[in-house]
Amino acid sequence: MSLNPADIYKDLWTIRQNSPLVHNITNYVVMNTTANALLALGASPVMAHAKEEVEEMVNIAGALVINIGTLSEKWIDAMFIAAKKAKAKGIPIILDPVGVGATTYRTDTTMNLIREVTPTIIRGNGSEIMALSQAGVTTKGVDSTSGSDQALESARNLNMVFKSVVCITGETDYIVSGDDTLAVKNGHAMMPRVTGLGCTASALCGAFAAVNSDPSMAAAHAMAVMGIAGEMAAKEAKGPGSLQLNFIDALYLMSETHIGDYLKT
Amino acid sequence: MSLNPADIYKDLWTIRQNSPLVHNITNYVVMNTTANALLALGASPVMAHAKEEVEEMVNIAGALVINIGTLSEKWIDAMFIAAKKAKAKGIPIILDPVGVGATTYRTDTTMNLIREVTPTIIRGNGSEIMALSQAGVTTKGVDSTSGSDQALESARNLNMVFKSVVCITGETDYIVSGDDTLAVKNGHAMMPRVTGLGCTASALCGAFAAVNSDPSMAAAHAMAVMGIAGEMAAKEAKGPGSLQLNFIDALYLMSETHIGDYLKT
Amino acid sequence: MSLNPADIYKDLWTIRQNSPLVHNITNYVVMNTTANALLALGASPVMAHAKEEVEEMVNIAGALVINIGTLSEKWIDAMFIAAKKAKAKGIPIILDPVGVGATTYRTDTTMNLIREVTPTIIRGNGSEIMALSQAGVTTKGVDSTSGSDQALESARNLNMVFKSVVCITGETDYIVSGDDTLAVKNGHAMMPRVTGLGCTASALCGAFAAVNSDPSMAAAHAMAVMGIAGEMAAKEAKGPGSLQLNFIDALYLMSETHIGDYLKT
Repeated sequence: MSLNPADIYKDLWTIRQNSPLVHNITNYVVMNTTANALLALGASPVMAHAKEEVEEMVNIAGALVINIGTLSEKWIDAMFIAAKKAKAKGIPIILDPVGVGATTYRTDTTMNLIREVTPTIIRGNGSEIMALSQAGVTTKGVDSTSGSDQALESARNLNMVFKSVVCITGETDYIVSGDDTLAVKNGHAMMPRVTGLGCTASALCGAFAAVNSDPSMAAAHAMAVMGIAGEMAAKEAKGPGSLQLNFIDALYLMSETHIGDYLKT
Repeated sequence: MSLNPADIYKDLWTIRQNSPLVHNITNYVVMNTTANALLALGASPVMAHAKEEVEEMVNIAGALVINIGTLSEKWIDAMFIAAKKAKAKGIPIILDPVGVGATTYRTDTTMNLIREVTPTIIRGNGSEIMALSQAGVTTKGVDSTSGSDQALESARNLNMVFKSVVCITGETDYIVSGDDTLAVKNGHAMMPRVTGLGCTASALCGAFAAVNSDPSMAAAHAMAVMGIAGEMAAKEAKGPGSLQLNFIDALYLMSETHIGDYLKT
Repeated sequence: MSLNPADIYKDLWTIRQNSPLVHNITNYVVMNTTANALLALGASPVMAHAKEEVEEMVNIAGALVINIGTLSEKWIDAMFIAAKKAKAKGIPIILDPVGVGATTYRTDTTMNLIREVTPTIIRGNGSEIMALSQAGVTTKGVDSTSGSDQALESARNLNMVFKSVVCITGETDYIVSGDDTLAVKNGHAMMPRVTGLGCTASALCGAFAAVNSDPSMAAAHAMAVMGIAGEMAAKEAKGPGSLQLNFIDALYLMSETHIGDYLKT
């Protein structure tokens, strides 16, 4: 497998044409910026978290994005209800395990979700992916690798046990699926200074998974578009405020030429 | 009835002078941008949703805005408590039926609110207004009209049965009240790509209804200011990110001259 | 005590070096902008409000910020649980009594918090501080002072009874602790037109209190950085939209020279 600009643009074009509905059960911090990123991309976001309506909502969606950033009891219930419905219907499920490892509550909720509904794609940063692997995978002992190598090994373990495509975002993004690992080297160092760009990355995985049936390519295309938009945005950004604004504009303006010019794999 | 710039500006000026308190029980996605739009306009926003305090809060407000975008049980309880208090006190109630029709939960909640508290103004897009009319109005059979005509007929039916002023937003905005229909043709095609501008439109109806006792004119003036701010914002916007920022600035900067120059009815 | 640019910058530099984790239990309206302000400053924000995880989360934090802007029952429970843990561990607690006085629910919750956990710093605007003093301090009769004098007297009363450092923000910010009162005269008149900048001020108190063990200096340094960022932002702002964006950029860009050039005490 390898990435090329025409395939990425084809997915982006399809999103813009079809405006797939992306159902998000996500955290309070990023709801606004996630919705704006999906709209700028061309998708159709909806946020709904009541147990009374999540099944009906996910039923008309092209993808379900579950993000544990500001968990509480009723939201967890809704995540399971929606995810089971999505699974039954074959709707792709993207899981963003925000801050997993920081508290038992996050770790337990995430592992239960992974075990019960097997997300199509799990997207997190290196430390989140390592925390998941530690919680859910019996390894052979102390891991001697470190940094992104260790995260990559964790992703491979998770993928082997649970079959979810695992997407690690960082300076280089890795998409792990079976024996294949795709790498995307786009992005900008100021991006982590904007809250919720990781959550946006997961939401974009949802939009791409709604139009591309290969979850590994969907995740890789989403990460390429994220990173390219970040680089386009950084060109005229003075700080994280203007980066965030330009990022939304870049998602809206991105052409096949931009993808060809910027893509680094 | 017709719209003129001097009357619109008079309301805007009064909002800026009196800073009416607008009590919002709204969805998580748009709370921040709704508050910022109301502040930029000159009003005073407050968000409060606990059953323990909504009566006291609405009691000191100039308008109550109820938005069902991210419903759940306790929020619905608070909506009814606040709306009954507002009704008893004669405080205008604006209802935004976000996504009504998509799930039974949204449709039932909205129809119950309409039946029990008769909002002063209902503001939605064409498909929301049509979904409401379908749920709440017995029509004589299959409707042969289509698109905005059908939405307009739905608005007239709703208004006839429930007496609420109905405001449909779209390429042209229509404000329906009895035999009168006002049209506002301002706005910009990129506005739907910013999340929550519909919700902002409803919140602005609240601010205008707090200073203008004619709900039909209040809604029309609010829609004119929305659309004009959108056009002012679009002049230097590269995408939805800069449009959103410029929109807030435009609400703050709007003068009587801007209204005169831009108003299209 | 007096303020000087080198000390302010030292704290800012330490925040940028150490990225202290600031645990926020705050309102829905400002979560995104609070997180972005903390990130732009150099701190590490986390939002968590479930009773199941707040103890574990605050345990790894450098400060706890409690903001009552959109209260409800379970959130109040979590505030007490987190605050008691913070108090037991000696982690600074910042309390933002948003809208206290407007409803009994806000006033009672705030006074209970103050009595049970004695926040390290209480930050509010003049009317909030006066409402707190009225609710919690037995005064000798009708106060004849007015405006900022009255707020200052209220702050002194609160500080005398509860020992919390009290920070009043307004045209001039005052930080009251025992016999000492620090004043910061930075800021810009358009800042109140952006929602949640008061909440950001409280969150910044958290970041500074995480690196400076003197809560009075921490609050004063935070207010200086707030006000200076506001002035830097206003230089090229057309309205509250661009002010908010520039403010985030300014927190990120602020150098020791900026502090020296702008500081007004």
